[in-house]
Amino acid sequence: MNVTLLGGTGDIGEGLALRWARDTDHTVVVGSRDAQRARDCVAAYERVLADHGADGDLVGCGNEEAAARGDVVVCAVPAYHLTDTIDTVADALDPGDVLVTPAVGMKHDEDGAHYNQPGAGSVTALADRAAPAGVPVVGAFHNLPAAPLADLGFDVDADTPVVGDDESAVETVVDLAEGIEGLGARRAGGLANAAEVEALTALLINLGKHDADLHDVWVRFG
Amino acid sequence: MNVTLLGGTGDIGEGLALRWARDTDHTVVVGSRDAQRARDCVAAYERVLADHGADGDLVGCGNEEAAARGDVVVCAVPAYHLTDTIDTVADALDPGDVLVTPAVGMKHDEDGAHYNQPGAGSVTALADRAAPAGVPVVGAFHNLPAAPLADLGFDVDADTPVVGDDESAVETVVDLAEGIEGLGARRAGGLANAAEVEALTALLINLGKHDADLHDVWVRFG
Repeated sequence: MNVTLLGGTGDIGEGLALRWARDTDHTVVVGSRDAQRARDCVAAYERVLADHGADGDLVGCGNEEAAARGDVVVCAVPAYHLTDTIDTVADALDPGDVLVTPAVGMKHDEDGAHYNQPGAGSVTALADRAAPAGVPVVGAFHNLPAAPLADLGFDVDADTPVVGDDESAVETVVDLAEGIEGLGARRAGGLANAAEVEALTALLINLGKHDADLHDVWVRFG
Repeated sequence: MNVTLLGGTGDIGEGLALRWARDTDHTVVVGSRDAQRARDCVAAYERVLADHGADGDLVGCGNEEAAARGDVVVCAVPAYHLTDTIDTVADALDPGDVLVTPAVGMKHDEDGAHYNQPGAGSVTALADRAAPAGVPVVGAFHNLPAAPLADLGFDVDADTPVVGDDESAVETVVDLAEGIEGLGARRAGGLANAAEVEALTALLINLGKHDADLHDVWVRFG
């Protein structure tokens, strides 16, 4: 399968790319607004993989080509770029492709991070509105700390909640998530339940800021 | 120390009472609007403890007397009774007592549970507004599933986030929480961060409803 990461050159895109490349047989398509930057990133990721005695199947290209090549397309971009990014690649998506959003809207003040809930109910719902017809949207990977995710020397031991209205698309994303060693996918229901998944990210940031024993905070459900 | 549970006759009040009685040296004061009901509950809790080869220091009384006796007073009542309950016992609270709220406002629809955020920002903030001067409010125990908490045969292995603006009160509640075997207390900052803690409860309910491998869902942060 081809897994595309739009915004695969930064934040959690980097960690997802590295881990899918290392832990699965999927082709990881790294997209960027700048195709050369995507290719440079892939070269850097290949060096990281080699440093860890691993390899993977990675390719870099512009966002539109990356979206066209992907069976699953993960929009690993900040919340404020999400709908713009989806609009940009909409024509490149085929019915049956799965669009995945890990984006969370947050505001920060002196107390910590707060979930900035959009009027649509969630950022995931905004992605669903922007997605072309026939392309189901799944919310996942909202709560993964970027730095340790991108550190292949770090062993993940965590869960990620998954929400979506299309059962087959959810199944695909659950399998994709669980392809990452140490990561569990947990079903949290339909897109209407996305707000609480997104809000968890703010809580994890606050725990990392205020609890002396926590820094980059992961979550396990049991 | 005397730990009071207002609404200690139901829901998570039962589990907290049983576990503090079994696992700590605190006197557990079970309060109810009906003092006889509180005494009957204590007798029932003592039988449960004996069935598990344990005992504890428990006493039952009306809510006002229970609040007067408590050094820490946990309002284990539904969100819609929270401020009424605090008003009822306000005169019985002494400056320096700590008021703890585990209440969460939720609405339910066919998709699942959704956090029903009050205009004040959180249910914890509502409790803070209702609390008498000099009585700090701490939010904790929002995310504990009531049934397994009350089952002393079940080994807890979970965390509870704690929020509060008064550091000494937070410290007291962290110690109290960690007195329960298998429960970790994690600091999530001030009362302004309570909404994301409360919202987590809805997510846990949704995971229990939609994930085949989860039922009463606990959380661990790491």
